[in-house]
Amino acid sequence: MFPEEYDSVLLKDAVDAFASLPGVGRKTALRFALHLLKQPKDKVAKFGESVIRMRNEISYCPQCGMICDGENCPICSDRRRDDSVICVVESIREVLSIENTGQYHGLYHVLGGVISPMDGIGPSDLLIGKLVERASCNRTREVILALSTGTEGETTSYYIYKKLAGIDVAVSAIARGVGFGDDLEYTDELTLGKSIENRVPFNPV
Amino acid sequence: MFPEEYDSVLLKDAVDAFASLPGVGRKTALRFALHLLKQPKDKVAKFGESVIRMRNEISYCPQCGMICDGENCPICSDRRRDDSVICVVESIREVLSIENTGQYHGLYHVLGGVISPMDGIGPSDLLIGKLVERASCNRTREVILALSTGTEGETTSYYIYKKLAGIDVAVSAIARGVGFGDDLEYTDELTLGKSIENRVPFNPV
Repeated sequence: MFPEEYDSVLLKDAVDAFASLPGVGRKTALRFALHLLKQPKDKVAKFGESVIRMRNEISYCPQCGMICDGENCPICSDRRRDDSVICVVESIREVLSIENTGQYHGLYHVLGGVISPMDGIGPSDLLIGKLVERASCNRTREVILALSTGTEGETTSYYIYKKLAGIDVAVSAIARGVGFGDDLEYTDELTLGKSIENRVPFNPV
Repeated sequence: MFPEEYDSVLLKDAVDAFASLPGVGRKTALRFALHLLKQPKDKVAKFGESVIRMRNEISYCPQCGMICDGENCPICSDRRRDDSVICVVESIREVLSIENTGQYHGLYHVLGGVISPMDGIGPSDLLIGKLVERASCNRTREVILALSTGTEGETTSYYIYKKLAGIDVAVSAIARGVGFGDDLEYTDELTLGKSIENRVPFNPV
């Protein structure tokens, strides 16, 4: 609805741009636009340019599919990381989440999606061939599947598992269970059941 | 928190830019950035440029203070509008809201804020002098105050009312009362009290 009734193409274009972002309606888009209208010109220029530069200059690592600023992937080229383990994820976002934990020191493999016949995404649209190639390398000891649960994620995990069948690597999946701080009472049955099935030796610190 | 752990200046700059918008945290900012990373380059270029162009090219009407694309304010220069009435608002946003109702056909006056000693905003920082000048013009018959309630808005309304005291114009304020569709039960006492005090003749259609 906003600001259709007012005759400003300049404002409307900026509102349209913001309204194209996920989860942003026209009222919020207008709020963003009016906020920037009150900022200094150089700040707004920096805003727009940083977004354009990100899209134009970010490249993708030919090995793991992660974004990188230059030619060297900061993860693949980090000699301190354990290059015998590859964690398979759906997108860049999951790499950032896992990196944020500070708990993982192996490499990644970004598939770029999951198999989804409904959206017309088949195995050949994902970087699965490259993953098999990497797993076949003598260095690789383990492949960790960290895809989402749900039909598509599980189908993709199973497909990859089958593809890796003839190769001498361990294939594991991240643990599913009751989250830290979660109440057992409010945990769904599937998660709770799995967390009992996959119990681990108690390890007092 | 996001994506401090990952070494990409290009991504970080874009996330920082989005995170500077009102109500946008770093997680949402990352979501916006990753969304644009998947869009075609020309679409992202259009996104950034429309924001920069808006900031650089939008001008302000010297009469009413509203934004305009060129030299002519689409409201002040519209001959079909009633130029004997001026509606005083705090910002551009209120003009857009009122225009959206389609119920008002007079002119506006955008103050650019309200008197707020806490924020160091005094009467001289607002377009009040210009309003007095416009109200003094023979054409102007009525000034409608449409500022927010609350101390600052009411102080500003009162200040304007005093400034217009010697001038031959009617000064009115928008009606406050129970909103359409609101339950009386959940309406605050002040609003409900005012809506009874300011009752209007019943007018069956």
